Amino acid sequence: MEKIFDDIMSDYVTTIENNLKHYTNAKVDNKAQNMLTEAMRYSLEAGGKRIRPVLVMEFCRLCGGKAASAAAPAAAIEMIHTFSLIHDDLPAMDDDDFRRGKPSCHKAYTEAMAILAGDALAVLPFQIIADASELDEKTRIRLISELASATAVNGMIGGQVIDIDNESRNDVDEKNLRYMYSLKTGALIRAACRMGCIAAGADEALIDKADRYASKLGLAFQIIDDILDVTSTTEELGKMVGSDDKKNKTTFVKVMGVEKARNEADKLTKEALGILDDFSGSDFLMALTAELLDRRK
Amino acid sequence: MEKIFDDIMSDYVTTIENNLKHYTNAKVDNKAQNMLTEAMRYSLEAGGKRIRPVLVMEFCRLCGGKAASAAAPAAAIEMIHTFSLIHDDLPAMDDDDFRRGKPSCHKAYTEAMAILAGDALAVLPFQIIADASELDEKTRIRLISELASATAVNGMIGGQVIDIDNESRNDVDEKNLRYMYSLKTGALIRAACRMGCIAAGADEALIDKADRYASKLGLAFQIIDDILDVTSTTEELGKMVGSDDKKNKTTFVKVMGVEKARNEADKLTKEALGILDDFSGSDFLMALTAELLDRRK
Repeated sequence: MEKIFDDIMSDYVTTIENNLKHYTNAKVDNKAQNMLTEAMRYSLEAGGKRIRPVLVMEFCRLCGGKAASAAAPAAAIEMIHTFSLIHDDLPAMDDDDFRRGKPSCHKAYTEAMAILAGDALAVLPFQIIADASELDEKTRIRLISELASATAVNGMIGGQVIDIDNESRNDVDEKNLRYMYSLKTGALIRAACRMGCIAAGADEALIDKADRYASKLGLAFQIIDDILDVTSTTEELGKMVGSDDKKNKTTFVKVMGVEKARNEADKLTKEALGILDDFSGSDFLMALTAELLDRRK
Repeated sequence: MEKIFDDIMSDYVTTIENNLKHYTNAKVDNKAQNMLTEAMRYSLEAGGKRIRPVLVMEFCRLCGGKAASAAAPAAAIEMIHTFSLIHDDLPAMDDDDFRRGKPSCHKAYTEAMAILAGDALAVLPFQIIADASELDEKTRIRLISELASATAVNGMIGGQVIDIDNESRNDVDEKNLRYMYSLKTGALIRAACRMGCIAAGADEALIDKADRYASKLGLAFQIIDDILDVTSTTEELGKMVGSDDKKNKTTFVKVMGVEKARNEADKLTKEALGILDDFSGSDFLMALTAELLDRRK
């Protein structure tokens, strides 16, 4: 299985990265505009695990859809994720100079360019899905609505606002923390799984199952991020460790300690794997889910 | 005509502002999230001329569409415009403390909140159009594609990048200036007129006419902005005058002087009015076009 898993993952990542290049290849006869595209690509190409687009593609496959049907929504969701990373790193936000071991976008370019590259990556995804003629119009509309709602006030951006607000408070409890994470990182992971099903034309029951899997995976994923911030090394992680504590971020580690946090992530992952039993041919996704729990970076 | 014009304009603005409120009324049980909505509304409610949404509604009417068909695209385009103003005012961009006589969003809230309020206003428009069940799916898809493409690299954001780049250069010629303006402000004005026609289900010939009108109006509108920056007072304009010169912005005034710039705006407006002759019942739009040329703020 190990070999097969790595092959499938590598194929997915190659497809995703080629698609991201394809959707951002509009060269024009203006240096400043091409610099904007370059800044967008710089952050898109910085790598990362590509979890969200892989989830789109894999759920599309599990629901019997073609790989081509997942191309646009997968690229779109990775762009939204990348836009959020670029803006999160800005001096007025988390003020991070590095991202995945490379200078963050505003360090490599300028702050103004990073704001605008993020802005462009927030809007382009909707054009890509709207123009995806391989999907019928009803499907495109639903994908756009899902992605936008997972991103805006009641999604990722809302979660980011709560996260910033929490930094100035010392009374953040587990309920608030779970709610914040369900928006900040959970909403987009749920959208990824749902969008994969929708792209394949799956019925509501399957979309709902994917959603429940994603909620558990998303929370486990975030708890592990919290754990890694205190247990990993800067070299392994590709960014400064201990940054949560420095910023007065309340984390699951702070609320329940490393051991209990790891147990919670473990429990959530087992429940997520249980839901995957209902999807036939989900060996790859089971392996991916297990790997995400074991990750060290 | 004067009285009727003011009445129509006032009705449009009332409808638009009610719709903007309606589309941002999602109160939730979280203070930080509600603060985000408040920051978005603060900038949306700061007023302005509402030119873009009025153009959407008026072209929809001229093409025989219902007012309800224009509600979502009109609100969407005003949100995109507002998001760009919020981000343009940021310290890393134009660093403006005031907008329309009120503290700009990052002054009223914080820089982080302004970045995120802008981000949310960049994404929400696509959800609003996607969920506009009064429009058929094909129309919604086209509206989303038009709006996104007018906003991203080859639209408003691309124009903003060129504008910033030009500030560090002293060799900006009229051709570059026209290109920059065609993106920075022109793209969204063209999108407004086109989207009004599309919402009404107009044919390509009408959309094309609206596009040509909009190109001329957009350029004239921008030339007048340049003129007002040197001829108006801070009180009239609601923002600091002379700011273009301070920031080494090349403007039409710099390239051709106030008189020639005004003549150019005049000529463009006459051409725009000529195109409107092809739309029956365009008295209001003719009056609006003429007024935009005469404005003092």
